[in-house]
Amino acid sequence: MRVGAPASSVSTSGVTPMEIISSASEMQLHAEQARMQGKRIGLVPTMGYLHEGHLSLIALAKKSCETVVTSIFVNPTQFGPGEDFDRYPRDIERDKALCAAAGTTMLFTPEAKEIFPDGYATYISVDGLSTVLEGKFRPTHFRGVTTVVAKLLHLTKPHKAFFGQKDAQQCIIVRKMVRDLCFDTEIRVAPIVREKDGLAMSSRNVYLSPEERSDALILSASLRQAEQMAKGGQRRAADIISAIKKLIEEKRTAAIDYVAVVNAETLAPLEMIEQGIPSLIALAVRFGSTRLIDNTIITVE
Amino acid sequence: MRVGAPASSVSTSGVTPMEIISSASEMQLHAEQARMQGKRIGLVPTMGYLHEGHLSLIALAKKSCETVVTSIFVNPTQFGPGEDFDRYPRDIERDKALCAAAGTTMLFTPEAKEIFPDGYATYISVDGLSTVLEGKFRPTHFRGVTTVVAKLLHLTKPHKAFFGQKDAQQCIIVRKMVRDLCFDTEIRVAPIVREKDGLAMSSRNVYLSPEERSDALILSASLRQAEQMAKGGQRRAADIISAIKKLIEEKRTAAIDYVAVVNAETLAPLEMIEQGIPSLIALAVRFGSTRLIDNTIITVE
Repeated sequence: MRVGAPASSVSTSGVTPMEIISSASEMQLHAEQARMQGKRIGLVPTMGYLHEGHLSLIALAKKSCETVVTSIFVNPTQFGPGEDFDRYPRDIERDKALCAAAGTTMLFTPEAKEIFPDGYATYISVDGLSTVLEGKFRPTHFRGVTTVVAKLLHLTKPHKAFFGQKDAQQCIIVRKMVRDLCFDTEIRVAPIVREKDGLAMSSRNVYLSPEERSDALILSASLRQAEQMAKGGQRRAADIISAIKKLIEEKRTAAIDYVAVVNAETLAPLEMIEQGIPSLIALAVRFGSTRLIDNTIITVE
Repeated sequence: MRVGAPASSVSTSGVTPMEIISSASEMQLHAEQARMQGKRIGLVPTMGYLHEGHLSLIALAKKSCETVVTSIFVNPTQFGPGEDFDRYPRDIERDKALCAAAGTTMLFTPEAKEIFPDGYATYISVDGLSTVLEGKFRPTHFRGVTTVVAKLLHLTKPHKAFFGQKDAQQCIIVRKMVRDLCFDTEIRVAPIVREKDGLAMSSRNVYLSPEERSDALILSASLRQAEQMAKGGQRRAADIISAIKKLIEEKRTAAIDYVAVVNAETLAPLEMIEQGIPSLIALAVRFGSTRLIDNTIITVE
């Protein structure tokens, strides 16, 4: 591996200058050099079009890592046929400024043709966890996620990698992969960041029409109601699911893919929310052509 | 990760003492420490019952790496149902002495229950290359190989990993995985080591009866004849395959699984051995209940 032209850098007053690296081999060399210098590396993998959720991950990484790598890569292998790969929102100039201001020290922006070149053939699968919930509706999605995350871990060599709880199933599957394959990286999961009115931050929110945007508030509202039900002693999963579905179905633009109550580690469906066992309430709902997910983890004492 | 009891060590006069490590987390910590000290790490992954082939890999690793890790792990996931996992030969005390004498500095001997614990679920597949030749007869074999090799690479963090050309398809698939997943490890392949009479070294040779052992010489002999044919201008794959099969079929205890002439990088079947393009002649033959493989790579100028 040799370094080609020096990576470009973006400097904003008062913060460490940020290097921008697009070559995979150069990224790997920079990561190795940082490790050899004894620096802690934190990775925040993203698909860009950054929002406060991503920035909270960068801020969290900054707390314990001198080298904060943010990757921006709209990963084609995690989109299914007919999904929104082509129209997925992109704004690299805005993302660069946000990353630099948030404390990213290396911005990694590889090209798809370098990450998945012609003849690419190697995939990582996590059995079981990948076929439920999102996996039922997006059968090749998690294979694409685990494969690209493994590649990013190899290229950026992080001590820690940071993921958002909004993609709850992704967090569980990535953690399982990292443990099963003995990656030397700690997976950290940060809470969902929401708009003031409760809508979970998502790059896809930009797709929503005003009516859909208004209807979509029912996702967080119904999850809050579910939390109240569980706290109040209503612990039958079927009752909680019915209550959530009833609320969502009242919205004209909403079409439910699933609402589920599962064990927050194994994703096994639950009949009851049991004391002391974290339960994940997860849902996916389409508003027009925009598919949103949201979730909450409940532990009743 | 914390180091538990100090790893035991075997010292033989005149060579570096060898540490013996059975804990996966301890192995990973030792590997990280070696890297932080600027040492080059070479990995020689084996299933034990070492022979001159393995020792040649250790010797090769020693040439460019101060830390030579030899792993001994009879990997259950690369054996199919009805294959020889249970009776695969094992002699750890002999292996320890051979490793120390050959220059291994860390011997990694993990337990199966640590590498593949209950609930293990993550597998790496290399599409295409894994379903031909050996893959036709051993459909889950290469998935087991790539998965365990990935784990060993994560645990031992090698700059280079060393494999024997006898497992030609394995070498090609591991190389493809390493390139596709961006592992920061160079894959080195060393030539087949043979007994004086031509039989390729294999831990499985110990299974052979005297008659089978004698019949098995036809493998290397027929490959040498194929090389002569190609050198002499007979380049039709079908002719070469026929000639090899005819020789093997003369042996009473031999039963052919396959004889193939393929592109040595892509494993695509060849009609002709073309000038300047490395061609792999590979075969698998059963002698009684023992299945042997052998191969040669030919490049005609």
